[in-house]
Amino acid sequence: MLSRYLPILEWGRTYNRSVLTNDLMAAVIVTIMLIPQSLAYALLAGLPPVVGLYASIMPLVFYAILGTSRTLAVGPVAVVSLMTASAAGAVAAQGTAQYLEAAITLAMLSGVMLAVLGILRAGFLANLLSHPVISGFITASGILIATSQLKHILGVSAGGDNWPDMLGSLAQAIGDTNWWTLAIGVPVTLFLFWVRRGAKPALMMLGLPSRVADMTAKAGPVVAVALTILAVISFGLADKGVNLVGAIPQGLPPFALPSADLSLIEKLWVPALLISIIGFVESVSVAQTLAAKRRQRIIPDQELIGLGAANIASAFSGGYPVTGGFARSAVNFDAGAETPAAGAFTAVGIGLATLFLTPLLFSLPIATLAATIIVAVLSLVDLKTPAELWRYSKADFAAHIATIVITLLAGVELGVISGVGVGLALYLWRASRPHAAIVGRVPETEHFRNVERHKVITIPHVLSIRVDEALTYLNARWLEGYVLEQIADRPAVRHVILMCSAINEIDASGLESLEAINHRLADTGIGLHLSEVKGPVMDRLKRTHFIEELNGKVFLSQDRAFSELARDSGDPVLPADHHQTRGMI
Amino acid sequence: MLSRYLPILEWGRTYNRSVLTNDLMAAVIVTIMLIPQSLAYALLAGLPPVVGLYASIMPLVFYAILGTSRTLAVGPVAVVSLMTASAAGAVAAQGTAQYLEAAITLAMLSGVMLAVLGILRAGFLANLLSHPVISGFITASGILIATSQLKHILGVSAGGDNWPDMLGSLAQAIGDTNWWTLAIGVPVTLFLFWVRRGAKPALMMLGLPSRVADMTAKAGPVVAVALTILAVISFGLADKGVNLVGAIPQGLPPFALPSADLSLIEKLWVPALLISIIGFVESVSVAQTLAAKRRQRIIPDQELIGLGAANIASAFSGGYPVTGGFARSAVNFDAGAETPAAGAFTAVGIGLATLFLTPLLFSLPIATLAATIIVAVLSLVDLKTPAELWRYSKADFAAHIATIVITLLAGVELGVISGVGVGLALYLWRASRPHAAIVGRVPETEHFRNVERHKVITIPHVLSIRVDEALTYLNARWLEGYVLEQIADRPAVRHVILMCSAINEIDASGLESLEAINHRLADTGIGLHLSEVKGPVMDRLKRTHFIEELNGKVFLSQDRAFSELARDSGDPVLPADHHQTRGMI
Repeated sequence: MLSRYLPILEWGRTYNRSVLTNDLMAAVIVTIMLIPQSLAYALLAGLPPVVGLYASIMPLVFYAILGTSRTLAVGPVAVVSLMTASAAGAVAAQGTAQYLEAAITLAMLSGVMLAVLGILRAGFLANLLSHPVISGFITASGILIATSQLKHILGVSAGGDNWPDMLGSLAQAIGDTNWWTLAIGVPVTLFLFWVRRGAKPALMMLGLPSRVADMTAKAGPVVAVALTILAVISFGLADKGVNLVGAIPQGLPPFALPSADLSLIEKLWVPALLISIIGFVESVSVAQTLAAKRRQRIIPDQELIGLGAANIASAFSGGYPVTGGFARSAVNFDAGAETPAAGAFTAVGIGLATLFLTPLLFSLPIATLAATIIVAVLSLVDLKTPAELWRYSKADFAAHIATIVITLLAGVELGVISGVGVGLALYLWRASRPHAAIVGRVPETEHFRNVERHKVITIPHVLSIRVDEALTYLNARWLEGYVLEQIADRPAVRHVILMCSAINEIDASGLESLEAINHRLADTGIGLHLSEVKGPVMDRLKRTHFIEELNGKVFLSQDRAFSELARDSGDPVLPADHHQTRGMI
Repeated sequence: MLSRYLPILEWGRTYNRSVLTNDLMAAVIVTIMLIPQSLAYALLAGLPPVVGLYASIMPLVFYAILGTSRTLAVGPVAVVSLMTASAAGAVAAQGTAQYLEAAITLAMLSGVMLAVLGILRAGFLANLLSHPVISGFITASGILIATSQLKHILGVSAGGDNWPDMLGSLAQAIGDTNWWTLAIGVPVTLFLFWVRRGAKPALMMLGLPSRVADMTAKAGPVVAVALTILAVISFGLADKGVNLVGAIPQGLPPFALPSADLSLIEKLWVPALLISIIGFVESVSVAQTLAAKRRQRIIPDQELIGLGAANIASAFSGGYPVTGGFARSAVNFDAGAETPAAGAFTAVGIGLATLFLTPLLFSLPIATLAATIIVAVLSLVDLKTPAELWRYSKADFAAHIATIVITLLAGVELGVISGVGVGLALYLWRASRPHAAIVGRVPETEHFRNVERHKVITIPHVLSIRVDEALTYLNARWLEGYVLEQIADRPAVRHVILMCSAINEIDASGLESLEAINHRLADTGIGLHLSEVKGPVMDRLKRTHFIEELNGKVFLSQDRAFSELARDSGDPVLPADHHQTRGMI
């Protein structure tokens, strides 16, 4: 029971030396990868580089204790950093103490929200983000992030919250390009692109085994960091207008009480909620993918608690919102991490780096970090999905494109909200106009099929309708209209059979519509019959007066209903019949 | 085509003398009923009485031209009047010119919104209000309205937007009760309650035919009006602190351009939207009920246009938001109205009253109007529904009670919004955890049923899963978890059959989950098979690579799938099998 809420109790029990070795090995590799990445994402979030390191220490420890994924690596990620920049930028200017306070408050709010959702077991809320909306949002975020970093490659100042503004601002500033910065930024970008694609094969040609080649290639950004620091020092680029990371405070993250400024919380709770949901969805998808590969399980509601604790820990140690990242988790997994302890060891690694390595990073060009970000996020841009969605589902395509366009034009927050809104509206629209068919008997069988798709037998005085959807309030009004229109078009009809094989639920509104249909058909002398009602649906109907008041019968199979009613002479089924038929149910 | 948008062209073509007589007759009866009602509802909306009359003239004419219901009677109604008072009261004080301007702006905004929704054919949005939410809202509104009128019966000043405030304010003011006002209010209320229940039988005992007795009883409020005016004049109650209607401006409604004050529109658009939706839902329900009785049809999207035009007309003639009312439409129907012309004739009747009758109403006590309102709205309070809902569906019960409680405590706007929110959240929650069952074969048949409900045959290496819900983004994540958990619990399983008989749709997220399940099962040597896939669902799946990549087969029937896979020796179905099985599909 306790290990349900403290997964560490489960895996900790069987922890041994061989697992320890594997976890330590993975931690070393992830630490090397994380140092430049943490600095880069802090830059993307508009925060001092050290905040990125702070966000990669305590959150990892807390996730290791409370998270259910064995291999998820938590920390700053690209999309959440962009959302943090957007939310904090709306309440303060970058570089001010208020801006940092806003970022920390976002981590606090997001942590509390995630934990509360987890305790309430409300993880299902993340379902509101459909795959097409998520992939549209990630594509658009990738484009926004890459564009936002171009100014660092050019060595100019530019701004903008949305794509047109960013491009306009860049176009105005392009005349001020610092050529030394560009001379670092462009080669580094090209190098990192090559590392991503070509480094592993090249290393394997040099004789390295596949797995080692893979891990070595992952250290590409570290090589770029080292080389560009050397270049800055060798050529004295600091005096030539190349922006550098500069002094990073040495030491472990400070313990800090996050602000409890109510007016700030009022301004930030909506973006914090969006950050929570996006972060949770990204994290859970990664965790599920990795867990399935080793036939492990994750518990989404406990993941909420783990991520919530990680974010609260981030806020208390001067960090900003974190979540489980795809790239780092994959590296952790591939490097052989077996338990969340690998994450805790990574935290130790980053802690040591914060204590001892930061002076070495003084001369690191910002352009190098920007190149790291650009190369990382461009892999998020997915150009195949739109065509696939167009072929498969126009509604999903619409939600996908709307999310991309609105995110690019109006920024990340409106992008997510309208993606959810469009997805929900399309879903409700479809649910409010379900598929229904008039069915007839396939000759010589007991099967009933759509009269428009198959050659089937029908009888003028018996109308069989199959509704392919639960009867809920979303389509209750539609149902009444549909049945009554079918009757209005067929004056010979004496019996209506509602074939319920695909009706998985009938809510109170659906029941009321059925009652209304029953009364109206009874008024005009038509019987209403049900066939193939599912067990749980029938159980609930029996708790009401509907079955008693039904001006017709309930049949176990559509075939029996059709056969019996077909024999009916065609005499009108008047409401008087009512009591007679009632007894037969 | 044109008559689709101008229904008057259809019924106008066959208009003749007998129809004219019936319509005129109905119009006279409705006019007599409407005069006190219009004054009372204007009072409820916090507006001068004459505004209620204005709102009962031009809107009726425009609805007669554009509406599709033959018998719907449009005008001020109780719930919409309460909502108007709440919205206008939030921006101005009652009795000021700004308050009236706000009410007129609400009519304008609501009219434009309804018309735009109609042109976009977006009537389905009204589906967001489930029956339990609507009935909860109406019950709570009835209680709020009745309570708000008690001050007029007592002859005191009191306020409050929500129930506790209203009661508190009344309790404070009760000491100031004007006994003369009470002496009018209480007997009139009792008289009107008696009229509603006992007048018809009493009149029939006096020898009147049933229908005439019914219509005469409907004139009860007019009798109360006449008698209390006489009482005021006879006893000189005007000098004894009894509040009277006072001078009503004589003359036809003024033509007026509604305000285009943007800051006002910004404040009022949300309440205007809620008024539109509530008004539309009430109106369409009434229209559908009446249309069904005569086997006529209404077209909801065209109703939006008709009601939109009615509200715009109301705004241009100094009125406030209107909609189709239940009581007046029922009277219109029972009095024999055959076409919307009856509504236009009613408009003429009210116009004549505005021209000539208003001086007679000078001495009408406000208490009489308050009594009319109380008696009308208490019939809206429905105390049986909660118990019925509790028995049938806890989720619907929760939405119903939440709507009642929030409406009483926080007012009509938050009440509607949270009703929609709770309904939607519960719906999405259910949709995200659909019913699924492991099924087995009923002995000696081809039927497959839930293993937990029936004694059925299963085979350890074949797992048949039936999901009773469309596979959409709301449950895509659930589906992956569910299938993989079932597998994790059953190490012997070699084949999974997904029985798709109740899967009415698979959206892009659902497809992605199926792909993920397929890959994960393939990784562990398990085959994934589909059975009984519906025609439209299969058509769309064929447009993707899913069927090609399926590590198993698609079977027409569950029975065939089960029989064939049962014969499988139990050798692992390795991904290598893949190409072999693919050819068999």
